[in-house]
Amino acid sequence: MSFDYALEATSGQARAGRFNTPHGPIQTPTFMPVGTHGAIKAMTPDQVQATGAQVVLANTYHLALRPGEGLVEKLGGLHAFMQWPGPILTDSGGFQVFSLPSAQINDRGVRFTNEVNGDTMDLTPERAMEIQNTLGADIIMAFDECTPYPATRKLAATGVRRTLMWMERCLAAHQRADQALFPIVQGSTFPELREECAKELVAMDSPGYAIGGVSVGEGHELLCEVTRHAAPLLPDNKPRYLMGVGLPEDLIACVGFGIDMFDCVIPTRYARSATVFTARGRIRLTHRRYRRDTYPIDPSCECYACQDGRFSRAYLHHLFNANEVLSAILCSIHNVHFYTQLMTSARNAILAGRYPEFASRFLEGYQRDSKKPSKARGR
Amino acid sequence: MSFDYALEATSGQARAGRFNTPHGPIQTPTFMPVGTHGAIKAMTPDQVQATGAQVVLANTYHLALRPGEGLVEKLGGLHAFMQWPGPILTDSGGFQVFSLPSAQINDRGVRFTNEVNGDTMDLTPERAMEIQNTLGADIIMAFDECTPYPATRKLAATGVRRTLMWMERCLAAHQRADQALFPIVQGSTFPELREECAKELVAMDSPGYAIGGVSVGEGHELLCEVTRHAAPLLPDNKPRYLMGVGLPEDLIACVGFGIDMFDCVIPTRYARSATVFTARGRIRLTHRRYRRDTYPIDPSCECYACQDGRFSRAYLHHLFNANEVLSAILCSIHNVHFYTQLMTSARNAILAGRYPEFASRFLEGYQRDSKKPSKARGR
Repeated sequence: MSFDYALEATSGQARAGRFNTPHGPIQTPTFMPVGTHGAIKAMTPDQVQATGAQVVLANTYHLALRPGEGLVEKLGGLHAFMQWPGPILTDSGGFQVFSLPSAQINDRGVRFTNEVNGDTMDLTPERAMEIQNTLGADIIMAFDECTPYPATRKLAATGVRRTLMWMERCLAAHQRADQALFPIVQGSTFPELREECAKELVAMDSPGYAIGGVSVGEGHELLCEVTRHAAPLLPDNKPRYLMGVGLPEDLIACVGFGIDMFDCVIPTRYARSATVFTARGRIRLTHRRYRRDTYPIDPSCECYACQDGRFSRAYLHHLFNANEVLSAILCSIHNVHFYTQLMTSARNAILAGRYPEFASRFLEGYQRDSKKPSKARGR
Repeated sequence: MSFDYALEATSGQARAGRFNTPHGPIQTPTFMPVGTHGAIKAMTPDQVQATGAQVVLANTYHLALRPGEGLVEKLGGLHAFMQWPGPILTDSGGFQVFSLPSAQINDRGVRFTNEVNGDTMDLTPERAMEIQNTLGADIIMAFDECTPYPATRKLAATGVRRTLMWMERCLAAHQRADQALFPIVQGSTFPELREECAKELVAMDSPGYAIGGVSVGEGHELLCEVTRHAAPLLPDNKPRYLMGVGLPEDLIACVGFGIDMFDCVIPTRYARSATVFTARGRIRLTHRRYRRDTYPIDPSCECYACQDGRFSRAYLHHLFNANEVLSAILCSIHNVHFYTQLMTSARNAILAGRYPEFASRFLEGYQRDSKKPSKARGR
């Protein structure tokens, strides 16, 4: 049966589960690589699959503008269009539109200027559902108001009010039983607003729930505080998706708070500047110290770039300096593999009932040689 | 035994053969993708192998400047560096250096300014051998003077004189028995200079021979005229490599004149502007007509991008417009596959004794829907 979720094990607050979709099951916790324009940057779909990724994300806003959801539908829907055989999730487009300089927001929705052709356009709950119904992803997201950080209580309360009102309109507009519509808990850093929002949304008995309004500049500590508080407000028997998060240490912490699904552009974005993740921390292959380094990115890694000691750090350093896109390709393969395997290891630890120990050991090894994490995050 | 060549069949002047190298045999005729900086642009080595490519080319000039041949050697040589398990060919670096504005050429060699660090550098026959011996390719090229087009007879004669003199110095300097040194026939468009140059080089009994000074702006007709004349000047029992050629119609014509090996940047360079080759001609996927086209690049093609009708032209059109590098990746996979399969089909036709019919039929189908070939060629 589609969209049923089975909670398989817990370890502390951490959860291992299985969420069924029309394009196959998702074992959680899981990381979803981001394919903004219907393509994970610098990777072919088979390379994405080979990393162990189970589900990918595509951006409604970008696809609606170009090539247009009608064309994607004509080409057989999003799965056929981007040749991804597994589950796909689309966001609502709201996050991108709210950040446009031209955005004018009111209770009806948001009006903005189309970046591609200059037209004035509206995005409303109804339109967000129409686009996502037409694209055809397995999981679609409610049109919410993502409160920026920092925010006054008044602004955050307006966000919650609109998010709840718009969710009712999304439910009314949503047309396809083969797509799971996830509402999004807003409320910024105000616990009572998060509680109010979660309570109202849970009453709607959706197939899964998201926590939004994070990864907007609040930093690791506040992200943890909000997630630790908000995750238990959601039902045990539904998957929980933390939107736009994050760095490996964020994922490890938030799995520990009971989150099941993550998405983030970090692995592929960092890959394009030859910044890669290893069990011992993050390294920048552009640094001179890697010019003659014969080791692979991570000797313990089994991705295509690392396995059998294949591509040396020195080669990757050279490729980046020579502007060869193979640098981004190999670093993307490695980083997405790192994220998916991190979630696989977390899942195995939860199934074995020892997630807290796993998390401590990972963080100890990971930070030992790591540089200070930069503040750059991305959704 | 390394570097022996077996002529397996002929059909007209076209030849099917097998050339052994320390990293495996090369079945000819063959096309060699170009990996300028030690990487075929936008492709992983396993994607290159999956196209059927047997041997790849890397550029001595670029690798000597960055990362330096000594570092490549420290990292295990060119095969380990770029993780290409099959045969590799390096050029001498002369072609790139001669085209630098700073190049000063005399009988000793060429003096030029290093683009990367501004140093004054010399490239001589001895230095070209030293770099190529250090890089460690299976096939290395003589340091020759590539005469530009058009050229006076006097300039072409100087090119031949230097090419012959420098070949003697290359032979004296070349240190490794596990690398085959190919001399290069120059002489521009002057038949008697080509004859003189070929005669002297053939007397040196090299493991293979190249024809250079083509693909320098002379156009298809003159390329054919020079190749038709020069190929038979070379021994039957050695492979013949036509440098920097070309478009599919050039390869088909020159296989017919008895050429065994080709290299060109065209398949990967064109791929980056979403220009792809099909059995019915070349198409530009950026054209509006492909915006809604549900067919793969070439329905008869079995490359990763086309097989099972996988990626639509509309998707590739979209990826290019969205600046997604996956456009270049998929188009490169397709184009290199097109070139390698064209050579495989040519070889099969030669083995079956019907190359002229194959060539006619290919050209008829290929040009039927093709746009006029542009003048842009590249080495």
